Amino acid sequence: MIQDTIIALATGGTGALSVIRLSGPNARTITQAHIAKDLGSIQSHSVHFGLFKALDQTPIDEVLIAYFAHGRSFTGEETIEIHCHGSSYIQQTIIQALLTQGARLATPGEFTQRAFVNGKLDLSQAEAVADLIASQSQQAHAMALNQLRGTFSHELSTLREKLIEFASLIELELDFGEEDVAFADRTALLTLVQDVLAKIERLIASFSLGNAMKTGVPVAIVGAPNAGKSSLLNHLLGEERAIVSAIPGTTRDVIEEVLIIDGISFRLMDTAGIRETTETIEALGIARSQEKIHRARIILALSDATNAAQLEADRQWVDTLRAEHPGKDILWVANKTDIHQVTIPVDLSISAVTGSGVDALTQTMSARIKQDFDVQQETIVSNVRHLEALEQTRGALLAAMHGLSHELPADLVAMDIRSAMRSLGNITGEIEMDTDILGTIFSRFCIGK
Amino acid sequence: MIQDTIIALATGGTGALSVIRLSGPNARTITQAHIAKDLGSIQSHSVHFGLFKALDQTPIDEVLIAYFAHGRSFTGEETIEIHCHGSSYIQQTIIQALLTQGARLATPGEFTQRAFVNGKLDLSQAEAVADLIASQSQQAHAMALNQLRGTFSHELSTLREKLIEFASLIELELDFGEEDVAFADRTALLTLVQDVLAKIERLIASFSLGNAMKTGVPVAIVGAPNAGKSSLLNHLLGEERAIVSAIPGTTRDVIEEVLIIDGISFRLMDTAGIRETTETIEALGIARSQEKIHRARIILALSDATNAAQLEADRQWVDTLRAEHPGKDILWVANKTDIHQVTIPVDLSISAVTGSGVDALTQTMSARIKQDFDVQQETIVSNVRHLEALEQTRGALLAAMHGLSHELPADLVAMDIRSAMRSLGNITGEIEMDTDILGTIFSRFCIGK
Repeated sequence: MIQDTIIALATGGTGALSVIRLSGPNARTITQAHIAKDLGSIQSHSVHFGLFKALDQTPIDEVLIAYFAHGRSFTGEETIEIHCHGSSYIQQTIIQALLTQGARLATPGEFTQRAFVNGKLDLSQAEAVADLIASQSQQAHAMALNQLRGTFSHELSTLREKLIEFASLIELELDFGEEDVAFADRTALLTLVQDVLAKIERLIASFSLGNAMKTGVPVAIVGAPNAGKSSLLNHLLGEERAIVSAIPGTTRDVIEEVLIIDGISFRLMDTAGIRETTETIEALGIARSQEKIHRARIILALSDATNAAQLEADRQWVDTLRAEHPGKDILWVANKTDIHQVTIPVDLSISAVTGSGVDALTQTMSARIKQDFDVQQETIVSNVRHLEALEQTRGALLAAMHGLSHELPADLVAMDIRSAMRSLGNITGEIEMDTDILGTIFSRFCIGK
Repeated sequence: MIQDTIIALATGGTGALSVIRLSGPNARTITQAHIAKDLGSIQSHSVHFGLFKALDQTPIDEVLIAYFAHGRSFTGEETIEIHCHGSSYIQQTIIQALLTQGARLATPGEFTQRAFVNGKLDLSQAEAVADLIASQSQQAHAMALNQLRGTFSHELSTLREKLIEFASLIELELDFGEEDVAFADRTALLTLVQDVLAKIERLIASFSLGNAMKTGVPVAIVGAPNAGKSSLLNHLLGEERAIVSAIPGTTRDVIEEVLIIDGISFRLMDTAGIRETTETIEALGIARSQEKIHRARIILALSDATNAAQLEADRQWVDTLRAEHPGKDILWVANKTDIHQVTIPVDLSISAVTGSGVDALTQTMSARIKQDFDVQQETIVSNVRHLEALEQTRGALLAAMHGLSHELPADLVAMDIRSAMRSLGNITGEIEMDTDILGTIFSRFCIGK
């Protein structure tokens, strides 16, 4: 049972208005010392105008107090929100005063952690709150909100129910184990595990797309030195109004630029490499290209339409790329088609200089991702922790299947199924979790949430 | 009558939580299109949990809706606050959706301007809102809150009542003017105007302090090249934890550093000059010192205690300074007293190197300002617009006094008094004001307030 009351600034920086939030059993009594209005008698979900005074009666600010009763707030605890003017002096003075009254400064994510502890959200929903706040694009936002609203949790609980059904059948067999009768229909059990496994496999497969949607779809622009990679990049970044920011690359100290097309973030990989390329050190260029291709989801293979010999060579190169990377979207793009039209069937003809065809290119990129998204219309996994738990579940289910098909004793199979249930339960936090793990999950939140 | 409904983000940047505010006659109907709950039937000052959906029913965010009825909100208009998760994507999507429904993006200060137009605040109170949000120190905050809570407005209205009393007496004289009888007791009238004038003079005099409190008390560190100005500055800035920030200087492109002592901001003037001084170009140094002394409220005249001849010369220099600048706080500070004690009576002995005496120095600085503050315990003027209006009021009152003592016709005196009332009314906005002037006043606000 949580006994202390936490406090934090819930809004960002300074603005016209700031919101300070208190959650815990003493939220009202702590605030009461500074407010004339009797907070003991107000209704949940009501807002009250008042003067916040220091203990020595110095007026601090004219504020609005919003009250949410125990059980009816985001955290599930008694909650007070103080809406004050957005100066950092006022924020600090009010928070300091309430700390003196016995509130404790919240750690990052502690409000959401309390919502989880009090059963208002499961763990995957709680994690979605952080994703929702961080979401920059429509698709990242849609995934986070979907997860917050419990779609993923619901799917997991369906799978869990099937495993519980399995466990109860195999326990029945165990009860009769002494009589050495294989009571349960092992074929039915095998079908049940296979069914769950197929769904787990689908969720695992969705991670590649989910992660791309959340962090930006990685795009590699590759091609021979004279193909015009730099021009295409400049055109994409210079002409599109949707550029959001330059973000630090996930590997090495490389700048990756983000482009949002139709609500989908695309990360143009290793753009620093393209920008600064001297295009003479080709060996380095090739190594770089290999790595970019490996990390990319969409590959723009760029060819110089004015160079017939190169174009012919590129045709083979693109065929090889497609053979080697069947899971990636590879677009063969002929550049400089304002100077020379191509006759061989490339995917797209553009001119990075005049900009012709570039719109069609970006539309094709977003259409490819939307297509993937539609195929995966069901739940999409975007969280690495969830992926790991799903992979552990898969491992345990495969072991259970092996046990079933090799007629291993029921208690061994039951152990594997329990292990699978435990891994699955980790995602929503249905099982008892290590407090260290919980701490790690919530510490990536901002303070005040 | 205001017909349109304005919208803006009221909180700063991105945080756990953002508040979007709508004010105007259609705040509820505009929001209603995106919220299932019937907003027509909810009570003022109540908060409701709901799902904000796009028109195509795509869920955007789980939000709280707070409602303030016409006449019971900050602006005096029907107001809806939408509390959403603090991602810029969500903020933009919600604001965009409501703009499509017919809301208009608010201009800076427009919410407060509406509060003024609807009679919820007078003009000086409205201006105090911007000062309150910008306040960085305890004293700047206290002045702004005092003004917001109407102390200044109340004082002005008392003065205005006296002028109305005067006007009615002189009007009486005008009514009987044809009979050529000086009906009103001109000595009593003179006393009345003198009384008002004395209070106006006091308010004008308070501006120097008020402005210093609001923007930081300007402090000049001056002295001979070897006195240790740079060491003292470094000690003040390096040792005090209360340094807030470097702010661009108000005149020239000079960096001024701000130090907060006991809730009072001090601006250490022209610190870039001290830091970079080569101390050889003395001519330049002297010109600089003159300007700094002119702009400062507190002057730290620094002497080298180890240099007897210089110390003696400095004694005369400080006497001259005091004679030339009777209104300023001049502290004669002997430095390097860890090496050599001074026998002549300086104000303070310090060692900028060991730090001894520096605490006493900062305490003396804050004590001097607090003393000034206590003397001026009543209302303090900190707004340049108010100062100008008060100076115009003084001009008109002086003209009225001249008219009274020179037995000028009552209608001329009445005209001066009306002019004084008009200038005074400018401060609180009681009179009809030019919309351009109003626009200028509110444009310095942040958007969302």
